[in-house]
Amino acid sequence: MAHIALPPDLPGIRGPMAFRPETAKPLNELVDVLLRGPHTLSPGERELIATYVSSQNDCRYCQTIHGAIAAHHLNHNEALVVDVKNDFEHASISDKLKALLIIAGKTAEGGKNVTAADIARARERGATDLEIHDTVLIAAVFCMCNRYVDGLATWAPDDPAFYRQRAALVAEHGYAVSTLTPSTASSPNR
Amino acid sequence: MAHIALPPDLPGIRGPMAFRPETAKPLNELVDVLLRGPHTLSPGERELIATYVSSQNDCRYCQTIHGAIAAHHLNHNEALVVDVKNDFEHASISDKLKALLIIAGKTAEGGKNVTAADIARARERGATDLEIHDTVLIAAVFCMCNRYVDGLATWAPDDPAFYRQRAALVAEHGYAVSTLTPSTASSPNR
Repeated sequence: MAHIALPPDLPGIRGPMAFRPETAKPLNELVDVLLRGPHTLSPGERELIATYVSSQNDCRYCQTIHGAIAAHHLNHNEALVVDVKNDFEHASISDKLKALLIIAGKTAEGGKNVTAADIARARERGATDLEIHDTVLIAAVFCMCNRYVDGLATWAPDDPAFYRQRAALVAEHGYAVSTLTPSTASSPNR
Repeated sequence: MAHIALPPDLPGIRGPMAFRPETAKPLNELVDVLLRGPHTLSPGERELIATYVSSQNDCRYCQTIHGAIAAHHLNHNEALVVDVKNDFEHASISDKLKALLIIAGKTAEGGKNVTAADIARARERGATDLEIHDTVLIAAVFCMCNRYVDGLATWAPDDPAFYRQRAALVAEHGYAVSTLTPSTASSPNR
């Protein structure tokens, strides 16, 4: 049970977002810009960064929903998402994305852990300043979201079908949909 | 020197915010709602939570500027800010705020560290669900800001007068001012 009185049928971040719409609005706008705005990294690549950080922070809801959104964008390749979470150095992703995931993981541990050598490696593999900036900020944003979700002891569905369905909705309509629209297969009227 | 090419005269989070105004806008809106919106916790109390978390995360820029803003709101009591950072259990703050700082500190370590007993203690001391929610989210937001600031290796001024002057500006005009207005005593034309 969540630490405070949240709408019981909304999992993960959606409960606290419904509880506090004043903060949900800029949070969703921030995530929309970072993960879905025009970019040289694809939405799937950016969702993989969010998923990896959430996995490192052991946040079940965030890593599962963003992993599902990543897979949705990547031709439904759920195995690739698992590979990135478990051992991205040997996953079928670009060398540039591997270098950015190193930066993301170190940002999650603590900003000072990111070294000039990490940045140089990413640049050698083609990363731009904007891609490096957004990687650090995506990692930082998910350090926030993971703590928000788990610090209030929200719940996460078990059924993978929930995440797949929700991922399709978010991939099509964006993050603001989180507080506005129907949600689960089992609750079609919400 | 920062890891990417940022405006060299803007310290801390202000460099990356000027680099990426699309993300600065919702970030500033989020912090404005949380730290300055209508609330049962005073702006000074909320700034103390932000300062404490930034101190725990060893982010020099954030703990110094938010400490200065807290002091500005609290009758310029800079000693109280130092006390809260060093040993809040013996600082001259309410028992409720002490219980909220415990929750904030645990959220910063990792959301799962917040226990039902931590929440019960805060409730016994008069904390509402909204105050608990906002404490967790303020802590989470500063875990983001601290990583954003240090993950890009931004710089922080040494002169306490810089922070006092900037604090007065932010306390009066809000956080959106960060990317829009004159900044330092030494750069009156920016």
